[in-house]
Amino acid sequence: MSWNRKHLLDIESLSAEEIVTVLDTARAFKAVGERAIKKVPALRGKTVVNLFVEPSTRTRTSFELAAVRLSADVVNFNTEASSFKKGETLKDTARNLEALNADIFIVRHSSAGAPHFLARVLKASVVNAGDGAHEHPTQALLDAFTIREKKGKIAGLNVTILGDILYSRVARSDIWALTKLGAKVTLCGPPTLVPRVFEQMGCRVTHNFEDAIGNADIINLLRIQHERQRKTMFPGLSEYSSLFGLNQARLALCKPDALIMHPGPINRGVEIDTETADGERSVILEQVTNGLAVRMAVLFLVNGGQGPQEVVAG
Amino acid sequence: MSWNRKHLLDIESLSAEEIVTVLDTARAFKAVGERAIKKVPALRGKTVVNLFVEPSTRTRTSFELAAVRLSADVVNFNTEASSFKKGETLKDTARNLEALNADIFIVRHSSAGAPHFLARVLKASVVNAGDGAHEHPTQALLDAFTIREKKGKIAGLNVTILGDILYSRVARSDIWALTKLGAKVTLCGPPTLVPRVFEQMGCRVTHNFEDAIGNADIINLLRIQHERQRKTMFPGLSEYSSLFGLNQARLALCKPDALIMHPGPINRGVEIDTETADGERSVILEQVTNGLAVRMAVLFLVNGGQGPQEVVAG
Amino acid sequence: MSWNRKHLLDIESLSAEEIVTVLDTARAFKAVGERAIKKVPALRGKTVVNLFVEPSTRTRTSFELAAVRLSADVVNFNTEASSFKKGETLKDTARNLEALNADIFIVRHSSAGAPHFLARVLKASVVNAGDGAHEHPTQALLDAFTIREKKGKIAGLNVTILGDILYSRVARSDIWALTKLGAKVTLCGPPTLVPRVFEQMGCRVTHNFEDAIGNADIINLLRIQHERQRKTMFPGLSEYSSLFGLNQARLALCKPDALIMHPGPINRGVEIDTETADGERSVILEQVTNGLAVRMAVLFLVNGGQGPQEVVAG
Repeated sequence: MSWNRKHLLDIESLSAEEIVTVLDTARAFKAVGERAIKKVPALRGKTVVNLFVEPSTRTRTSFELAAVRLSADVVNFNTEASSFKKGETLKDTARNLEALNADIFIVRHSSAGAPHFLARVLKASVVNAGDGAHEHPTQALLDAFTIREKKGKIAGLNVTILGDILYSRVARSDIWALTKLGAKVTLCGPPTLVPRVFEQMGCRVTHNFEDAIGNADIINLLRIQHERQRKTMFPGLSEYSSLFGLNQARLALCKPDALIMHPGPINRGVEIDTETADGERSVILEQVTNGLAVRMAVLFLVNGGQGPQEVVAG
Repeated sequence: MSWNRKHLLDIESLSAEEIVTVLDTARAFKAVGERAIKKVPALRGKTVVNLFVEPSTRTRTSFELAAVRLSADVVNFNTEASSFKKGETLKDTARNLEALNADIFIVRHSSAGAPHFLARVLKASVVNAGDGAHEHPTQALLDAFTIREKKGKIAGLNVTILGDILYSRVARSDIWALTKLGAKVTLCGPPTLVPRVFEQMGCRVTHNFEDAIGNADIINLLRIQHERQRKTMFPGLSEYSSLFGLNQARLALCKPDALIMHPGPINRGVEIDTETADGERSVILEQVTNGLAVRMAVLFLVNGGQGPQEVVAG
Repeated sequence: MSWNRKHLLDIESLSAEEIVTVLDTARAFKAVGERAIKKVPALRGKTVVNLFVEPSTRTRTSFELAAVRLSADVVNFNTEASSFKKGETLKDTARNLEALNADIFIVRHSSAGAPHFLARVLKASVVNAGDGAHEHPTQALLDAFTIREKKGKIAGLNVTILGDILYSRVARSDIWALTKLGAKVTLCGPPTLVPRVFEQMGCRVTHNFEDAIGNADIINLLRIQHERQRKTMFPGLSEYSSLFGLNQARLALCKPDALIMHPGPINRGVEIDTETADGERSVILEQVTNGLAVRMAVLFLVNGGQGPQEVVAG
């Protein structure tokens, strides 16, 4: 199946076939990253704007390098939401950048829906790089890519997502992607962070760690945003770690071939201990590598690329 | 006529023919911005330094992208005047950057004359990207380009510049460019910001809004730098807006084909209301697009390009 | 002799032959910097990470431009040591960047040994761009390059290094490079900053300015880091200047063909007066130009380049 979307705003509105098209295209781009010359001319002469209205280094760098390896020109525009006095000023900023003949906007914003808003007012393509607590679609795509590559499939697998689900755009996008692709998703964490309402998204919710991990093929640990939630949502980092942190003792309760994932950056000693994070079941760094390939695929597709069959010629 | 200057320091010293050469060259580059591959090899292997000693995002981004689309390598060097303890240290910084075999310096500085000073001490080309309250030549060139493109000519047109003229480098450069090209320029705003001394530059000065706009073919609204002048120069933003702000009611007093221009960023509700800013007579976003083409032309010309006839081969 | 190292971590471990290979390769790249198109495809499709965990503009810009002129893609990652809570987090950051298929890391860090640590945990090449008070190898290589180019040789020359030796990574790297290449190195400055222990590195130590400069072929003035040492190590900048600052009167005591060097940025009126810094014996700006050539050579060699014979084809 080929891709016909101008934007990538969320996972919720994608079909399973569209997700698979991205994954297949990303596979072709991953091979590009292993060549001596890690570069293809697919987006030569195109202008990609990194519009980040929320601090980020890792995701911005990944997108920037994805654009550069497609031979695009990149404009970085970092700002903070507080510098926008009124709603229309984000629009003004974006339209001014668009007037420089920009082709693709990569948008991160602390408010949910900002990329959708920009997609309505711009002629350029918009890629959501994380909007508030809503979605982070390329993270879900790279997670799905990693699972499929390692396990050979996604359908039928038991995937457990652990930690701060309530405020996590990664969790929402992962749930959409994995359930669409046929995985069985279990959510686990403190009740304050993992309310039962998520069952409506088709997930199983449990607050019992052992119940959550015993049957899991994949354990995806989310970062505790302790800057924000520590005080109101749970007693402290050490209590979180003692109840829900993954360590070598608990790893022994998991399936022997369970994969350990984390979107990064990890809090060593909180969600995961060092031995487990760096152990052989961890695919955390491969997620980073796959993220670049997925972002190349997304930029390629929203710019009019049809699918993986076009990449090889590079 | 061909171009023979190594620097672009101001509009004041340019002839009408030289200005027209820039505009004609910019027209050729504007077409490049509409191609699928928005890139020409004209400055390949050249090094362009963005030396911005005053905060700026929009102008820097426009120049950066102009250089990139000419295939130049760009070094961004942003600093603040306060970090220079002595006069010669700006020179030291610039000469150190020049020693990296830099070819063109794009200079913005809070002090008038800084680009001229650097043009004397460097072997590289210097382009003034705004110096204090003195000049902002590429803004005037893009304004002239926009007027010529929309109206088919500049000579004989009535151009009204509204707002903070006294402290505006845009106003000074616009006045030079437009009067050299034969336009009749009217200045209007509060008497504190629009003193009669500007009549010596060949302009008409009026403090009556309706008198200023009634006969205008072009209305160019300058941004109120309210951070600085509000307290000393006029009572407040709302009073400014009520006396000199452009809105739909006042637009009805203008010629039906009058163009509305603004160098941006606009203060919605101060110089202009939202409906007018986004209305069909507004060419504010086209000014941004044209600014990139003008800056490509300027970089091309100061680097030894002769004129528009060379661009097409791209 | 050809180059077989994957990293450039220090000068101490290099042989004289290896240093000469870098200098010869840099000579070929210096010629590239003088071409109309200052660019070679040697590192096309390679990814170079500028990992600067200590503020720097000049060295970072020089390395960035070196990478760009070799046609590499560059990722800038600037942070501060204080943002790393634990030792392994520098490793996490670096390994995450490496997972983006990075080929070369250029590392500046406020702690001695950080580049060596990263060289052990990464698969990519590591180039030390200055680590604490330990080494700054590319500065020493550009100093050696400049001396050799100007004097035709290094062996047998008298080189005096003046100023803050104790805390200077430049001094350490210079001493290693110049003594390996056969120069006789004299160190001079206040006793608090130039302890006798440096005699163990094969240098002559003197605290008498006239004794230090009278016979010198090269006078290398180090920057006084007055932000840090002023209070504890010597009474003040004016006293330092009166005792150890180079000026026109003292220059008359030097050999007529003595070269004046400084790694920059200079403190005019402290280590050197303006007339001397800008005089005809000063090669300070040529050091900057040579630094770029040396860094191109280093990136080229650690990426698998064998030596200067490969550069010309460019």
